[in-house]
Amino acid sequence: MQKPSNAKGTRDFSPEVVRKRNYILNTIKEIFEKYGFVPLQTPALENLSTLTGKYGDEGDKLLFKILNSGEIASSINTDDVASNNTSKLIQSLSEKGLRYDLTVPFARYVVQHRNEINLPFRRYQIQEVWRADKPQKGRYREFTQCDADCIGSGSMLNEADLIFIYDEVFSKLGFKQALLKLNHRKLLEALVEVLQLDFPVTKFTSTLDKLDKIGREGVQQELAKLGVDAGKSAKLFDIIGQFELNTASLDKIAIAFDHNTKALQAIDELKVLFGFVEQKGIKLSIQLDLSLARGLDYYTGCIFEALIPDSGIGSVSGGGRYDDLTSVFGMPDMSGVGISFGIDRLYDIMEAQQMFPKQEINSNTVLLCHFHEASMQYAVSVAAELRAEGIACMVYPDVKRLQKQMDFANKEKMKYCIIIGEDEMTSGVLAMKDMESGQAYKATINDIIKQLKG
Amino acid sequence: MQKPSNAKGTRDFSPEVVRKRNYILNTIKEIFEKYGFVPLQTPALENLSTLTGKYGDEGDKLLFKILNSGEIASSINTDDVASNNTSKLIQSLSEKGLRYDLTVPFARYVVQHRNEINLPFRRYQIQEVWRADKPQKGRYREFTQCDADCIGSGSMLNEADLIFIYDEVFSKLGFKQALLKLNHRKLLEALVEVLQLDFPVTKFTSTLDKLDKIGREGVQQELAKLGVDAGKSAKLFDIIGQFELNTASLDKIAIAFDHNTKALQAIDELKVLFGFVEQKGIKLSIQLDLSLARGLDYYTGCIFEALIPDSGIGSVSGGGRYDDLTSVFGMPDMSGVGISFGIDRLYDIMEAQQMFPKQEINSNTVLLCHFHEASMQYAVSVAAELRAEGIACMVYPDVKRLQKQMDFANKEKMKYCIIIGEDEMTSGVLAMKDMESGQAYKATINDIIKQLKG
Repeated sequence: MQKPSNAKGTRDFSPEVVRKRNYILNTIKEIFEKYGFVPLQTPALENLSTLTGKYGDEGDKLLFKILNSGEIASSINTDDVASNNTSKLIQSLSEKGLRYDLTVPFARYVVQHRNEINLPFRRYQIQEVWRADKPQKGRYREFTQCDADCIGSGSMLNEADLIFIYDEVFSKLGFKQALLKLNHRKLLEALVEVLQLDFPVTKFTSTLDKLDKIGREGVQQELAKLGVDAGKSAKLFDIIGQFELNTASLDKIAIAFDHNTKALQAIDELKVLFGFVEQKGIKLSIQLDLSLARGLDYYTGCIFEALIPDSGIGSVSGGGRYDDLTSVFGMPDMSGVGISFGIDRLYDIMEAQQMFPKQEINSNTVLLCHFHEASMQYAVSVAAELRAEGIACMVYPDVKRLQKQMDFANKEKMKYCIIIGEDEMTSGVLAMKDMESGQAYKATINDIIKQLKG
Repeated sequence: MQKPSNAKGTRDFSPEVVRKRNYILNTIKEIFEKYGFVPLQTPALENLSTLTGKYGDEGDKLLFKILNSGEIASSINTDDVASNNTSKLIQSLSEKGLRYDLTVPFARYVVQHRNEINLPFRRYQIQEVWRADKPQKGRYREFTQCDADCIGSGSMLNEADLIFIYDEVFSKLGFKQALLKLNHRKLLEALVEVLQLDFPVTKFTSTLDKLDKIGREGVQQELAKLGVDAGKSAKLFDIIGQFELNTASLDKIAIAFDHNTKALQAIDELKVLFGFVEQKGIKLSIQLDLSLARGLDYYTGCIFEALIPDSGIGSVSGGGRYDDLTSVFGMPDMSGVGISFGIDRLYDIMEAQQMFPKQEINSNTVLLCHFHEASMQYAVSVAAELRAEGIACMVYPDVKRLQKQMDFANKEKMKYCIIIGEDEMTSGVLAMKDMESGQAYKATINDIIKQLKG
């Protein structure tokens, strides 16, 4: 007999874990809605033509591809087998793949529904994505993304609203020390100009992006290989660094960049953004980090990275402004700004730091215990009264020893048991037990309802 | 440039549709929780060894299979290509598949976690499933199932709780005429004995299951082909029929079955069930329908089918008791009872009958309109005050003509606009417009908060 197991890199979520994950997701969802974002859902299955070529060669390899249905022998060209032509074989065997992120399906949706969409369009989307990555600690083949994007408006108020969302999400989840790193892609472009580097900005940003991992010396070595001399490297590290987001810092940066035009554009935008943020006042720490690069090539303006210091886990969210979401599907000039939360990482930190509030994640089901058929019948009518008041409860469905019923309630971490025997049936005064404190007392059903609802 | 499209048989859910679907799902979820069911989630990706052979030959063909990653040429045996051996080719090209229902993954979960699970275990699961069916109206390749099962208890109170759940779900969703058809698999087994049919009960039930489609004569013809003579057919149709669920009907059925032992077992169980249902009192109509068969072989006790009469759509939910959920994974004797709601069908009926309550599905976002940078800044601070009170709102992010801003609010079906200009900034008395009635009035922010929260 086969011993069943999960597919590699996938997980079951037990009831307790579902509740904890839902606590995070519902918190974020409510805050998204409070800022005017509306929900969108796209299917897990996409045509491979929609997905392929959007995530680079490495991404194409990591797409999960669906085997076409029906007979497949006739689709296989044995010449392709002989010449080991993987991409031709995939083309003939598969037309569909699994969602790899939420951005490409969003872009597809926007293009297909361009005539119905009302700009500016603020959408959020919380769904699973799949990547055929090598599974390892904290990296899964099936995981949840949680995105919010605002497209069709260039106003910095969109960036500001996303910062307000970060502030509210981290505060509501109980993170007292969250840090938002902020940079502007145009400052990185300006760096390439100011340092007179003769390679593309994407090459530069992908090198700079490694600073966390390989340190200053590592970056200097990599830049040296690209022909950047020690003087330029030193100048680079003179300019970049971490600043508080305020007008004084921004003025200082303008001078450091020698009033480069691109740098000034970025600084103007950051000043507007700072205006909104300063006016509202937030708890979140914001750090202007000129070394922050974010891998994705398609960002063109502000870039964000949020992290929980001392959690031992990298960023828990990232995002930025892009000029062009949809041109790959034939629709140019659709700009926007978006962020994405890594739910698994937030979960891991909150679990390690025991941050889930008990009342949100414990079972709030009341167990009704009984001694025989008659008291079980009576318990069923008590249950109906409790449920009519919106109280979750369950009558232990079998006639078993009371201890066995109470054990069940304990293991399920139920907070209360109501115990019904002959006396209770006669008097209508029920025996209630608080399973946490062990305290037992007598109460009428009306008193119980008042207490459980209060 | 490619024109993007959805994969065949899949759909995007626009914000309005997501809200309507969530209204249905949240209603059902809340009621499941009220009856002590806890949430479970399993991954979309499963090992093919978990899925294959569980849904019959036809089901195996409808499984979506994932192409293995990496080079695939070396996995292809050209002999299998030459001999057109589809199943061998699939075996060598694919190890994983997509979830086809929620029952098999639940069984796998139960077996893997047998030592942690606390019986009786009431779990609900609301997730997508995938089937490579031919897409047609109302049938999709990716759709949502919504299951609740209680395992590890043979008590009829579990069946009763599921009936109470049906009652609450249909009533809460606004269906005044829902009908629950009820039968017992042992009555069908008894029929085979009473009629002295010499073929297996599954053959009989699959024929009887077609009664809705091919009518009494069609069933008689099919039975005749199986060697059932006209006398037996007549007797069959004498016995089966629709009854009200009550003690008198059950006694009559016992006589019609000539006190066959299996029939009496079923009738005893139905009497207990009727006792619970009668005691509570429900609005739902229950019909004891001896012709109800439900296709699935694995049911062994009560079977359910719920429908909305005159909706033009077949059943919206089905379920039943089974003796053996997990033996296919090496764990015998795990009995239970479960039901499954067809969300797409409920959605279609509610949409056709305009049953979605406006306040649940309309945007409750307030739009803050302005005339220039300064009033936009002011609007941002008003928005912060509204959000602090939990009111969803959005400042129109760009400085544009007022008409354009109001058009946006109208298209988004927002209920209110707050309009802020010089006068409002000076006086602190804001202009509020009810977009539905067109009524405009002046109010302080405190009054607005009171009104929007009340």
